[in-house]
Amino acid sequence: MDNTPLIFFDPFPRTEAMVFTADVAAGCRQLGRVVSHFGSRAPDDLVESVLPEVDIIVGQTAMPVERLDRAPHLKAILNVKANWEPNIDYAQAHRRGIHVLSAAPAMAPAVAEYCLGQAISLLRGLAAADTLFRGGHEAYGIGGNGKAKTLFGARVGLIGYGNLGRALVPLLRPFGCDLIAHDPWLSDRYLEIEGLRAAGLDDLLETSDVIFVLAGATSENEGFLDRARLERIAPDASVVLASRAEVVDFDAFLELAGNGRFRAAVDVFPQEPVPAESEVRATANVLFTAHLAGGLEASYARIRDMMMDDIRQILKGLPPLRMQKAEPRQAAMARSR
Amino acid sequence: MDNTPLIFFDPFPRTEAMVFTADVAAGCRQLGRVVSHFGSRAPDDLVESVLPEVDIIVGQTAMPVERLDRAPHLKAILNVKANWEPNIDYAQAHRRGIHVLSAAPAMAPAVAEYCLGQAISLLRGLAAADTLFRGGHEAYGIGGNGKAKTLFGARVGLIGYGNLGRALVPLLRPFGCDLIAHDPWLSDRYLEIEGLRAAGLDDLLETSDVIFVLAGATSENEGFLDRARLERIAPDASVVLASRAEVVDFDAFLELAGNGRFRAAVDVFPQEPVPAESEVRATANVLFTAHLAGGLEASYARIRDMMMDDIRQILKGLPPLRMQKAEPRQAAMARSR
Amino acid sequence: MDNTPLIFFDPFPRTEAMVFTADVAAGCRQLGRVVSHFGSRAPDDLVESVLPEVDIIVGQTAMPVERLDRAPHLKAILNVKANWEPNIDYAQAHRRGIHVLSAAPAMAPAVAEYCLGQAISLLRGLAAADTLFRGGHEAYGIGGNGKAKTLFGARVGLIGYGNLGRALVPLLRPFGCDLIAHDPWLSDRYLEIEGLRAAGLDDLLETSDVIFVLAGATSENEGFLDRARLERIAPDASVVLASRAEVVDFDAFLELAGNGRFRAAVDVFPQEPVPAESEVRATANVLFTAHLAGGLEASYARIRDMMMDDIRQILKGLPPLRMQKAEPRQAAMARSR
Amino acid sequence: MDNTPLIFFDPFPRTEAMVFTADVAAGCRQLGRVVSHFGSRAPDDLVESVLPEVDIIVGQTAMPVERLDRAPHLKAILNVKANWEPNIDYAQAHRRGIHVLSAAPAMAPAVAEYCLGQAISLLRGLAAADTLFRGGHEAYGIGGNGKAKTLFGARVGLIGYGNLGRALVPLLRPFGCDLIAHDPWLSDRYLEIEGLRAAGLDDLLETSDVIFVLAGATSENEGFLDRARLERIAPDASVVLASRAEVVDFDAFLELAGNGRFRAAVDVFPQEPVPAESEVRATANVLFTAHLAGGLEASYARIRDMMMDDIRQILKGLPPLRMQKAEPRQAAMARSR
Repeated sequence: MDNTPLIFFDPFPRTEAMVFTADVAAGCRQLGRVVSHFGSRAPDDLVESVLPEVDIIVGQTAMPVERLDRAPHLKAILNVKANWEPNIDYAQAHRRGIHVLSAAPAMAPAVAEYCLGQAISLLRGLAAADTLFRGGHEAYGIGGNGKAKTLFGARVGLIGYGNLGRALVPLLRPFGCDLIAHDPWLSDRYLEIEGLRAAGLDDLLETSDVIFVLAGATSENEGFLDRARLERIAPDASVVLASRAEVVDFDAFLELAGNGRFRAAVDVFPQEPVPAESEVRATANVLFTAHLAGGLEASYARIRDMMMDDIRQILKGLPPLRMQKAEPRQAAMARSR
Repeated sequence: MDNTPLIFFDPFPRTEAMVFTADVAAGCRQLGRVVSHFGSRAPDDLVESVLPEVDIIVGQTAMPVERLDRAPHLKAILNVKANWEPNIDYAQAHRRGIHVLSAAPAMAPAVAEYCLGQAISLLRGLAAADTLFRGGHEAYGIGGNGKAKTLFGARVGLIGYGNLGRALVPLLRPFGCDLIAHDPWLSDRYLEIEGLRAAGLDDLLETSDVIFVLAGATSENEGFLDRARLERIAPDASVVLASRAEVVDFDAFLELAGNGRFRAAVDVFPQEPVPAESEVRATANVLFTAHLAGGLEASYARIRDMMMDDIRQILKGLPPLRMQKAEPRQAAMARSR
Repeated sequence: MDNTPLIFFDPFPRTEAMVFTADVAAGCRQLGRVVSHFGSRAPDDLVESVLPEVDIIVGQTAMPVERLDRAPHLKAILNVKANWEPNIDYAQAHRRGIHVLSAAPAMAPAVAEYCLGQAISLLRGLAAADTLFRGGHEAYGIGGNGKAKTLFGARVGLIGYGNLGRALVPLLRPFGCDLIAHDPWLSDRYLEIEGLRAAGLDDLLETSDVIFVLAGATSENEGFLDRARLERIAPDASVVLASRAEVVDFDAFLELAGNGRFRAAVDVFPQEPVPAESEVRATANVLFTAHLAGGLEASYARIRDMMMDDIRQILKGLPPLRMQKAEPRQAAMARSR
Repeated sequence: MDNTPLIFFDPFPRTEAMVFTADVAAGCRQLGRVVSHFGSRAPDDLVESVLPEVDIIVGQTAMPVERLDRAPHLKAILNVKANWEPNIDYAQAHRRGIHVLSAAPAMAPAVAEYCLGQAISLLRGLAAADTLFRGGHEAYGIGGNGKAKTLFGARVGLIGYGNLGRALVPLLRPFGCDLIAHDPWLSDRYLEIEGLRAAGLDDLLETSDVIFVLAGATSENEGFLDRARLERIAPDASVVLASRAEVVDFDAFLELAGNGRFRAAVDVFPQEPVPAESEVRATANVLFTAHLAGGLEASYARIRDMMMDDIRQILKGLPPLRMQKAEPRQAAMARSR
């Protein structure tokens, strides 16, 4: 038996180009043996063949307790996505001391950048201004800025304060915003120490000039931003929907935004791709992007960097440093799409 | 003779709504007498009538040496615009110890916000993404982000580092940018102490991922970003033209940007309003706004706040603190439009 | 059987005044039942009597696997000290999903404050200056500052980058230090992302103007700063020994510092209290304190705040947020005194 | 006549070693001609001989209006001290557009470092702890920290917010202090924008945990911290006297501090050197230094750097960037010692 570490790449839907570039391949081969499968989830027989010797799994391979039991050397599962899938027995992995890690922090800077950019566009009316200018309907200076608002000094409400919120807050700080947050997983004191003020959800919706929806989807929070809640949003507030469409009543959201009740940017949809004939595309007053907030090459470069750093740590017997550790209960509640 | 201070408001093209709101009026009346004229530059006879007693002029009243001589109590001229006009004898005002101040710093935060928002839109392709989605041509995730770049870690070149640059840099810091600057008025060490690296203009143009054109127009720098210079810009860089159109060869700029040579956002134009029939409006690949970067209500609120603070200081015999002091030579070189 | 949560306080050597003030007592009683023992470790029969129902243990109660097995409801052990004791079966607690937490982060700000204050005293010669002045031997201005150095721009080496380092670094940032760190538990990239540069131990010792010894004592690192290592320290560097005396060859350290080989501040000793007749007290050129760096009332207030916050989280079924989570392997290696 | 610029060094009491090191000499000679005099103020005939051609004066040469009139090419006077002397006609220099600059900002970082170090020593009792330990009277941990306080979260009052305050505030920020300031030259809004809260002097004295006396001495503020004011200081507060002894009733200050009414560090004295037989030296409970706060080699290096940078700017016809510009009225009020 080969005693060098065995690293198994099964990262679908991540591709080889995303997570197994030449430098990653070279780095892994310096550390030990590599078995990989791309383009689909690895077939069962391949998975079974690696279990007896595998040290590190990179990907979302289904790992129920029976498979964990057949992987006596397994030290870590590095989920290179930003969410937890339900196909791992998180509690048993925790009991075994197997690190279960996700790449969620790697996507967060890009999502935060998207959030900030769209918030400024919404507040300042920048996208609309281009259309007016091209049509010859522009007005100059203050005359064209009748509806323009600024992020400086605005009250900003974060719905959810996890990886995305933590990446976004530093970008907002120089604007001197009054930052409030709602996150049922976190204590008021914790938020205070992070420099935020805890707010009830209704209070946040009613008083924020800018709202960032950053909450992950769990088995418990589907649609918690229902029509009644969305109707509480302050008139003409700017709302950026960046995390998961499941947490809002999407139809109500688009109807209200389309009618000018609030300004909105939307990156996520209940069904992706959005059906060709969907009326969603015709909604007025919304800045749309097609789930582009996080997934650009810069984010994958960050995933690869984190992943290699943590693989090296784990194979030295040291705790991982860069990727996010699963909290078993939290991970078990998370909903995949 | 009334010994209470006389404050003269002659702020055209600033309006009463911009600089003489009810709270300003009340504040000024607590400090002394007010004479005001709005809607045009004050007529000569009105100006002449206030000169013998005026303490503070708010506005761009022409003040050649002869008028300064007729204003023995004059302590300050508060130009509530963002640039210096040539109709003041700056050297004589300096000799007399008359503070000549501009509101340039008040506009800078809004311009910086515009710059950041448009830079993110350009880098990430956010405006284009909305169009693609609405047309049903979107691709999701990394598939739709083929041309997307990020501000995180990008090299950012500032052409000009005055009020605008100083307001923009703090917004860029959390992105970990490699910040370089070109400003012939400033020494390399000064820029270094500000946390920037001094760069030659050509080096900046050739190596920056993002370029912000923030230089004011002077009698010496018209069109210094000529076609040859603009052709040095790195392919597909993102360029935000935010200060004055006079500093670039505008036709060459639009031609290059329109052809996709670089990405661009443009807020200022050689002639404003842009003529109805101008072909500028049809330029592809550019994010246009109609001189909207600085002039929103939030900026005027900031002007009023600075102005009242400095009027109070000056009438107490203390140095002004908030508005920008004219450097006589610099002010004399500045070009108005 | 009472179904309200049972919280067991057995925090010796922490006292009632440190961790069970009136507000803590009131807070705990709102959450459930409290059993407490102060002044010594709780006797075995008391411990055994609470095991069947205990939810939360606050203290260093010995918890080998047998006791863990007899505590079916146990959710968390909150060690209100700054180090891990070997009397807990960390691996089994981890398997059970029992949170094992320490208050180490609560002490860190005070230790960091001590480190900074002593470093400035050493660099600037402030303590010696008082003695010279009182003796009438002072010289003024630059004449008295012949040996004075500054922290601004100095190279600062951190030996160990855990809670103490993370608390210290923000205090050093405004001085524009060149920050380097040596920590065998951490990767170079991790340190880089934290804004530090990873350095080999010898390189750090030889090139740093200021050295902070912040490494915790483990079963593996006793005396790793041996005489040979200490002799590598740059002449006249300033060294602050703040974490654990066990990590240095203490006699060699005092000999070298006493001879003026480097400047030093020492807060920790191999034996505490230092014996009355010890020659340690007569060492010249060292700023001594008697393990005062962390343990002041402000730190205990922080412990109580963190502890109550995390007890509430855990009893709600949510992950703790404030105290430090044990990494089983790391905790097992830690050495108590 | 030689048309190259003439730079005249007459910097006494600054020495050649402080302001005319080899690199400065080389730098100046690249710019033009140098005439220098060290060890005393330049004799009148030397001064008179350079006036017709001098461009730059480095030093405190007396420059009344008659001499200014005889120096037609004079562009700048670079006072390489931290205060304004009364031997210059500031108003006439201002009228002429001659830059009058001081090196005050160069000393400020070192003074701020001193202030922070002494404040921590006072709050934490670090100096006293060394004495106790050496005498065998130490107590360990919380037992020895009965009087220890922390800067974290403390209310800190700044008396005077000029160069020293601006250098100190960034060092205090990471401690999360509640920063208040009293400065009659500054408006409340200005302080607010700087992130401070304006406070009345009595309010500041009565409520601050730490007080930094940073006010410069003027003809108007001698002894404004009189006995009655000093008696308002909160019991056991920590007070650092860092700017000028003239602003306090020094005898009352020492009496109160010596009696333990408040904790104090003192760097400046009404008479320097303090007479050999002075009872000042025997005052208990005070940390003394002999005007060491600002004047170390690092500060002179900063002076030289600023000075050369601004000489180069001025000789290019550009405004100086680094040294402090005299406000004529403020400079005229300043008192030298």
